[in-house]
Amino acid sequence: MKLHNNSIAQLAQALLHPASIALYGASDDVSKMGGRPVQFLKRSGFAGRIYPINPKRAEIQGLQSWPSLQSLPEVPDQVFVLTPTETVIPAVRECAALGVKVVTILASGFSESGTEGVQREEELRQIALETGIRILGPSSLGVVNPRTGLVLTANAAFAEPDIPPGKVFVASHSGSMIGALVSRGKARCVGFAGLVSVGSEVDLNIGEICAATLDDPAIEGYLLFLESMRHGPELRAFARAAHRAGKPVIAYKLGRSAAAAEMATTHTGAIAGEDDIADAFFKDLGIARVGVLDALLETFPLAKRIPLESAPKRVGVVTTTGGGAAMAVDELGIRGVVVEPPSAETLKRLEQAGLPCTPGRVLDMTLAGTKYETMKGTLDILLTAPEFDLVLAVVGSSARFQPQLAVKPIVECAGQPKPLAAMLVPDAPEALAALTAAGVPCFRSPEACGDAIAAVLARRQPGQEPMLPVPGPTLTLSEADAYGILDAVGVPHAPAVLRRFGSEAAPLPFAYPVVAKVCSADIPHKTEVGGVLLNIGSDEELAAAMATLRRNLDDKAPKAKCDEVLVQPMQKGLGEVLVGYRVDADAGPIIMLAAGGIWAEVAKDRSIRLAPVAVETAREMILEVNALKPLTGLRGKARGDLEALAHTVSAVSQLALRPELRVAEAEVNPLLILPEGQGVTAVDALVFQHV
Amino acid sequence: MKLHNNSIAQLAQALLHPASIALYGASDDVSKMGGRPVQFLKRSGFAGRIYPINPKRAEIQGLQSWPSLQSLPEVPDQVFVLTPTETVIPAVRECAALGVKVVTILASGFSESGTEGVQREEELRQIALETGIRILGPSSLGVVNPRTGLVLTANAAFAEPDIPPGKVFVASHSGSMIGALVSRGKARCVGFAGLVSVGSEVDLNIGEICAATLDDPAIEGYLLFLESMRHGPELRAFARAAHRAGKPVIAYKLGRSAAAAEMATTHTGAIAGEDDIADAFFKDLGIARVGVLDALLETFPLAKRIPLESAPKRVGVVTTTGGGAAMAVDELGIRGVVVEPPSAETLKRLEQAGLPCTPGRVLDMTLAGTKYETMKGTLDILLTAPEFDLVLAVVGSSARFQPQLAVKPIVECAGQPKPLAAMLVPDAPEALAALTAAGVPCFRSPEACGDAIAAVLARRQPGQEPMLPVPGPTLTLSEADAYGILDAVGVPHAPAVLRRFGSEAAPLPFAYPVVAKVCSADIPHKTEVGGVLLNIGSDEELAAAMATLRRNLDDKAPKAKCDEVLVQPMQKGLGEVLVGYRVDADAGPIIMLAAGGIWAEVAKDRSIRLAPVAVETAREMILEVNALKPLTGLRGKARGDLEALAHTVSAVSQLALRPELRVAEAEVNPLLILPEGQGVTAVDALVFQHV
Repeated sequence: MKLHNNSIAQLAQALLHPASIALYGASDDVSKMGGRPVQFLKRSGFAGRIYPINPKRAEIQGLQSWPSLQSLPEVPDQVFVLTPTETVIPAVRECAALGVKVVTILASGFSESGTEGVQREEELRQIALETGIRILGPSSLGVVNPRTGLVLTANAAFAEPDIPPGKVFVASHSGSMIGALVSRGKARCVGFAGLVSVGSEVDLNIGEICAATLDDPAIEGYLLFLESMRHGPELRAFARAAHRAGKPVIAYKLGRSAAAAEMATTHTGAIAGEDDIADAFFKDLGIARVGVLDALLETFPLAKRIPLESAPKRVGVVTTTGGGAAMAVDELGIRGVVVEPPSAETLKRLEQAGLPCTPGRVLDMTLAGTKYETMKGTLDILLTAPEFDLVLAVVGSSARFQPQLAVKPIVECAGQPKPLAAMLVPDAPEALAALTAAGVPCFRSPEACGDAIAAVLARRQPGQEPMLPVPGPTLTLSEADAYGILDAVGVPHAPAVLRRFGSEAAPLPFAYPVVAKVCSADIPHKTEVGGVLLNIGSDEELAAAMATLRRNLDDKAPKAKCDEVLVQPMQKGLGEVLVGYRVDADAGPIIMLAAGGIWAEVAKDRSIRLAPVAVETAREMILEVNALKPLTGLRGKARGDLEALAHTVSAVSQLALRPELRVAEAEVNPLLILPEGQGVTAVDALVFQHV
Repeated sequence: MKLHNNSIAQLAQALLHPASIALYGASDDVSKMGGRPVQFLKRSGFAGRIYPINPKRAEIQGLQSWPSLQSLPEVPDQVFVLTPTETVIPAVRECAALGVKVVTILASGFSESGTEGVQREEELRQIALETGIRILGPSSLGVVNPRTGLVLTANAAFAEPDIPPGKVFVASHSGSMIGALVSRGKARCVGFAGLVSVGSEVDLNIGEICAATLDDPAIEGYLLFLESMRHGPELRAFARAAHRAGKPVIAYKLGRSAAAAEMATTHTGAIAGEDDIADAFFKDLGIARVGVLDALLETFPLAKRIPLESAPKRVGVVTTTGGGAAMAVDELGIRGVVVEPPSAETLKRLEQAGLPCTPGRVLDMTLAGTKYETMKGTLDILLTAPEFDLVLAVVGSSARFQPQLAVKPIVECAGQPKPLAAMLVPDAPEALAALTAAGVPCFRSPEACGDAIAAVLARRQPGQEPMLPVPGPTLTLSEADAYGILDAVGVPHAPAVLRRFGSEAAPLPFAYPVVAKVCSADIPHKTEVGGVLLNIGSDEELAAAMATLRRNLDDKAPKAKCDEVLVQPMQKGLGEVLVGYRVDADAGPIIMLAAGGIWAEVAKDRSIRLAPVAVETAREMILEVNALKPLTGLRGKARGDLEALAHTVSAVSQLALRPELRVAEAEVNPLLILPEGQGVTAVDALVFQHV
């Protein structure tokens, strides 16, 4: 069910700003899970109406207890169902019948628990579809809005009076993480504009929930904690909308290792995608993907300050501690961000101002230079130096007890047009609080620092929105028909002649030697049936080859419909690659460039982007494939036509804008790379087309 | 100057337990660097005698000030020189003349500052050599012993009354880091048994200092913060001695990225080695190398609990939060540690005890199972399950305010024979303090958790100590002589016949086709002078080839002494590799197995160990080289003789035990890998031998 604008506003209101809430199955015992929400809501001073529902008691933690939903004096905006799994569906039906807008389900035991659970989940989905009630969960630990005291959660970490409000909204697959983020945020003076534990997303999913809050002016950015990629279309739509609204999105996603990806699957019932596809998804939608948990909390101020443009961002570093700065440089370097040294012009300005100007990649003022005037003067010069897009100040031990020396000047420079970030080497909570209050992006570990900066710089502007065919069942095309699709998007392929079995032999339009391949939509993997014969040198050999192919077909694929053989000249390139296009269920259309042959498998040597991509992006992809390095002229080797490759990768990716071609998946493999100036040539292709 | 045992004890005493110290150039102004040590020593209650030296004042911060070192009533054990660079050398001479045992130098401006600095450094080295005084620094921020209140440092982070004592000793290239570690340690209830900022190690270096403290019973382990690899021999000796003493060593080393490695060079004047050599160095000497700064503080208790054996360590995970545990599993997985699922037997025991026993890689008790009895019962079973060598408990939000639920049982299981570690998902300082006090290895971020566990499990027992030839100038051997070295260690190579230019042609002992290569110690790179001719098919062709080679030599290498040509049969393998041996200045003898041809360069596809290695270790190395995967029978490809390769790698590494062969460096490249059962064959080799 698609929501119109009005429903979106209603959803956001019921979810984050409910005037009234019911706690279905609330307990009087605060040590029990069902007792927590009432306790937290009272403690946090929630101003709305709270209705505990428990037929066994007259009072719950000092509040009047109600015997049923029907007995309430009003229809609550949101109901939190705290009762066990078996009782959830009747409760949700009751909510729907009364006209409750959002029902949140704490219990687990749905799709992650076998057949019975899957059936329960399906029932919930049906109720939502039929009645229009929106369901959060199951396995949701609830919703928190620190701005209004809405601490509607069973997460034990919220057992404290003041949950500080902030500017970012958190949506998490893991319920535990909303507590972890609030507690960790508190320790570094970071608060939130809202947190939601989305559970297993039977109805409301992360993308939809976040999108519903985009109009809330108090929400300036988003943190996503994702166990796996799921509900991709809504997430894509949200990311594009957030980008348009200028609200940065930061994501932490599990599953970088095979073991954790598998775990996400068993834990939530989702299908784990390949992590490098997820990575392309985030970057291409302008989402800063972090890999360090603390960076999830520390990246927003930086993302807010750094505009999402395509130009590479140059980072300059100034420090009072060489060793401390080297940690940051190292963490940046292993993530591909190379720190820029100051220019000769900048060094001259520093020298003229009587400031330390050591040679080297970072400006090391050393311990002796740890003075207010030195740091302030240096920052003033670096923040107006044209070679930097971002300046990082790394402060050593003085930050702990003498913030007036090197931290104060950073706070004072917070308002300058060029972004300035800080990393503190010692534990220095007060200095961090001062920097945070001033809006300076600041980091308390080199890992979070490197991760956050690299994640923010790796974001790309969302590209053209794809136009896809209506999904449905697909058919394989024969190689000849696949070439037709390549022709339509402008991918060069080897000349090909079709020859029917038993037909008279006309002269070939190209010279021998040639290759002959069975050509049939029924035989996607030709070599497996002995359907490819190489190095055919003459008319006679070709006739013999036709006969062999016929025999092999009769022998190994008797049921396949195959009347033709495709004949091509033998060709050799300097190298070969695989160019693949497919519509991923979550990421949408993707384009992949991979090393050809066994290398793709051995070293996972590939580059992925969301399709379509421009030629310029395809050039970047080529640089990411190790196997293509020898073709750049390395060690005097012959150069391959990588420019033609870039055009071809871009051309294949244009399938994402050609719904009329109805392509679900296309794999050009191998694509031969010829010497510079001679282009590239596809010598095989496999296409799956929607019927 | 080598120290005998007595001097080692004296060094440790003067450094960490001085009865008296002088502060040369102490300032009355506590806001100045020179004022800090007196302030810190007084505040920390140092019980020894403190002598500020400043001829301009009668009193320094309430203590009597002395005009000179000579005026003191005794010879102080240690002198901290706080004056500027130019004044350092006279001060050190004065100390040496008086018989001071250790002098520590704060000033920088030595080898990192050009010719004049290098000269100053050389002078210091001379003074130490001639007088026996030991020098710490220059650029040393000092020495701290929290056990005795010796806060002899100018590091601003020590401006607090209580520096908690602990069990580990810190030695750091970066002076700033000793303050950072103390402050960060304090925040997690971790103290230190001593800290030393070694500066630029003109005399005393990290390995020597740490070795001097090995007899101190209060020091149970070591943390090293290294900017680069330097003074390798002393570090190696210390690591071996620490291993024998059962005292774990944890190291954090900069320079994983090219930019940071370069920075370490400019910052300290050291030569940056390749990071994967450093990595092999640490692992092979039993040092746990961490990559996350916090892990440097959090790894020791785990390293102490896990014996350094060669058997692979199996990790089991139990959790109250699936998402939280998945973070730890992910961080372990990307570091190559795969979490083991519980065995069927263990699941049965859990079931019989009425405990949650979810299927999957980790035992997820879920929020509902977050109870004391559940966690305690589960831990009791997991800690006696034979499939685990280490159990990790990941605790969610309850850890923050309800440690009695899932943290208390962990504390209670601390004493069990099987090691148990904990990771807390929320910010939960009290729970962490309780775990730390109980000696439970505990982590507050998934990154530190994964990094620490992986680092501890990656340690290998130090192997056989190498026996090396006396170093000195080296000469290149001719290919024929290089084969003599390969013969001596048992590395198979292609049959080879030497033929003199102009000699009569005797019949070859092998069939054509053959290869002919000029053979001379003067021509290490034969192809560069046109000195290799392939595919020679007959006696006539060989004679012609000899003539061509002679012409090429006369043309391109007229000065080279070359009378002979080496003739070998043409051979082809399924693949080729490079096996290299060399004595690294810091790491000592290393053995390397690398992908052959252009792949080594394109993908840095190689495995390194300290030499010598056993065949078993060589087998592990083979698994680490991607390019060798196709030879394991992948995708139906022919299998290569990887067992013979393992024997050959081990054989080359035995050069580290054959000082009489006087080999400084040997490179077998290429070594052809023949089909399974047919062995390997070297078809070229380059050896550098000490004269």
